[in-house]
This record gives sequence, structure tokens and C-alpha cells, in this order.
Amino acid sequence: MLTEQEQMKKAVGEKAATFVKDGMKVGLGSGSTVYWLVRKLGELVESGVNIEGIPSSKQTEKWAHEFGVPLTDFSKVKELDMTIDGADEVDENHQLIKGGGAALFREKIIAQAAKELIIIVDESKMVTHLGEYPLPIEVLPFAWERTANEISKLGCVPKLRTVDGEILVTDNGNYILDCPFKKILDPDQLNKELKQIVGVIETGLFIDMTTKVIIGDKETVTVID
Amino acid sequence: MLTEQEQMKKAVGEKAATFVKDGMKVGLGSGSTVYWLVRKLGELVESGVNIEGIPSSKQTEKWAHEFGVPLTDFSKVKELDMTIDGADEVDENHQLIKGGGAALFREKIIAQAAKELIIIVDESKMVTHLGEYPLPIEVLPFAWERTANEISKLGCVPKLRTVDGEILVTDNGNYILDCPFKKILDPDQLNKELKQIVGVIETGLFIDMTTKVIIGDKETVTVID
Repeated sequence: MLTEQEQMKKAVGEKAATFVKDGMKVGLGSGSTVYWLVRKLGELVESGVNIEGIPSSKQTEKWAHEFGVPLTDFSKVKELDMTIDGADEVDENHQLIKGGGAALFREKIIAQAAKELIIIVDESKMVTHLGEYPLPIEVLPFAWERTANEISKLGCVPKLRTVDGEILVTDNGNYILDCPFKKILDPDQLNKELKQIVGVIETGLFIDMTTKVIIGDKETVTVID
Repeated sequence: MLTEQEQMKKAVGEKAATFVKDGMKVGLGSGSTVYWLVRKLGELVESGVNIEGIPSSKQTEKWAHEFGVPLTDFSKVKELDMTIDGADEVDENHQLIKGGGAALFREKIIAQAAKELIIIVDESKMVTHLGEYPLPIEVLPFAWERTANEISKLGCVPKLRTVDGEILVTDNGNYILDCPFKKILDPDQLNKELKQIVGVIETGLFIDMTTKVIIGDKETVTVID
């Protein structure tokens, strides 16, 4: 029996799958809500719908194999019709903070490559201003202390992400700095400034990418364009 | 017996060493001109001058060990007094193209960390406009084809760097795209646009970093502030 939160995740994940049409190339995000999406896409494939996905993490790749969703990659595909992914925060303009699962770089690649980006979240992720959730930033290991110092000048104290006392290493072999900006008034500007810093590979700010948000609360699923 | 070009490189490398003073933390670039610098710094150390270096490549690290130059890293040092490095092109405003040796990211880190950046080149590297030398750009391996496609929209056909038929992998585990822009009219703007592209880690454009250029020609060594 699913918890209330799992039921919400299932509902929005399955709702998102209804937007996937025959012949589409689909970017597949990461995280527990995407699990339900991939599972549903597997049912579509089994019923004869012809789709191909590009996964944003090793975990999602595993799910795709498990549920029989065919995969492709960017050596064969230039553009995606649609990417569906979760988020850690969504503001009123549908700007996002992502990267809680450390897959932000690949998630951003598949988001940028897609004509449409559908974000699937439960209502707890909706915020007025981004920043309460510490912004994840992927950085190169070499001189990461220096990169962190440059980032701190923009108004936060970056924290190197660890798991069980070990430095977390991303699928790309890099580190993640979690950056608590608290309240980000201009996400676009902050993203641009962060990207100029030597050593910053990618930030968890997803600016002007979202085309649709699917929000689950206890009773309903709402789709906002 | 040294060739004429090697003699030029030796002359500018040794000239640069005269700017290194007791107690300094020095960023050490990469390439054949830097070899002569490091060799000279080794002599200074032996004569009692107290310096510490941070190398930008494994090759430079090796030379430092060979010539007895003590090394440190960014876990112990926040700023450098000076960085000395070569360049592939230097324009009239002392903007640079670097990265021919694939060490551009670490070179940029040590350049940015230094109060002063001294560039050592022979006269063949001096140009009116940057861009004849293909601009090296370090990119993440994942979806590099897509990153290359985004870069191409800015006016070049990127070429993945290979060595002996194998893809070249940088010290950071990434790829290099060589991007022939031919004539770069606004290096600052191009650098900013490139840095915004998802998948671009760092570009070989070094903007507003140079404080001094030491140029060797057949007969003289010229220092320009």
C-alpha cells in the first residue's frame, strides 16, 4: 500500500505519460516521481506505442531497462520532443531548482535539448521565491575550494556534498556544492554570474525552460501551462 | 645546441623568473616555454629563495619535482602572488587564446587566482585579432555532440581533439573541442556566450587577466605592461 506522498507521485508521473505520443524522443529525468513515469511509459511501449528515451542518470537507465522503455543517446538524436523531470523547487514563474539527486548536469542537457519540458512535482515543491532549498552546483574537483570561495562572494556559504562521510562524486566524476542562498530574487542573473565562475560546470537553476508543470496534491492533479 | 626558437623560449622563461620574489606563491603554467621558467626557478630555490608553486598540469608538476621547486595546492593557499604561463595567441589588448596543450582549465584557475599574470611567448604568437588559432573548449563527455552543436551556432565547426586516433581526455577527465572561429571580434562577449552553454566547462579565452607580456624575438626580450 502506497503512502499518501507516493500516491501523489504516482498520479503526476502517470499524468505526464499521457502527453507522450507515438514516435516521440523523450528525455527522462531522475528521482522518485520519474520512477512512476518510466513505469507507465513501459506500459505504453508494451501496448505498441513507439518511443525512445534518453535517461539523465544511471538509476533512470536501470528503470528504463526494467520496464522495457527503449533508449537512445545524443550520438543518434539531436533534439528531443519532450523531457519530463521532477524538481526540488518551482517558483511562480516556473523557474526551478534541481540537483537534489546530483544529476543536474545531465538533467539540464536533456531539458535544453527538448522542445517541451514538463515538470512533475507534489505541491510541497511550489514556492514564491527560489532559494530555501540549497542550490546544488556541480564543480570540478581540482581547486574546488577556490571555486567555492568565488561562489561564496555571491552570498552563500557553499557546502561540499558528502555521502556517508565520503565526498559525493557525480556520474560525470565531479563534486556538488550545496549553496544556501535562502532567497534568490533574480534566478536568471544569479545563474549567469555563477556560470562565469571558473570551475563551475553547471548550476541547479533551470531558467526559462519549463513549458508545463504538473502538480499533485492530496486530491487532485493540476496541469499548468 | 638549442635551436633559435628554443633559445627564444629560454630567454623569455628566464626573464619571467626575475619577477619572482622571495616568499611568493606562484602559479606555474604549461608548455615548452614554462619548462625554462621552472628550471630557472629551481636555481633560485637552490640559492635560498623561498617560493611555492601550484602547477597547471602533470607535466609541469614533474618538472617542478625534477628542478626542486616546492609545490602547494588550493587546499592550503587561497591566492597566488603571480602566475606565469605561455599562450597560443595574444592580441593587442593582451587577451589570450590558450589550451593548445589541453590544460586550459587548470591554467585558468591559477590565472584567476593570481594578483598578476605574466604571459611568456615568442613573437609568432602576437596577433591583431584572436581566432586564427582554433579556440580550445573543454566540454563534458556526456552529450558532447550536442554541446558541439550549440557551439557551432556561434560560428564555427568544432572538431573533437584526438591523439593517435583516440579521443584526447584532459587531466580532468573531459574532452577538448577545437573551434576555428577564424576572427574573433569581441573575445569577451564570445567567452560569455560560450560559458552559458550547457556542457561547456571552460574556454581557452583568457579575458582581462594578463598584467604583463614578455615577448621574445630573435635578438631581444621585450616586457610590456
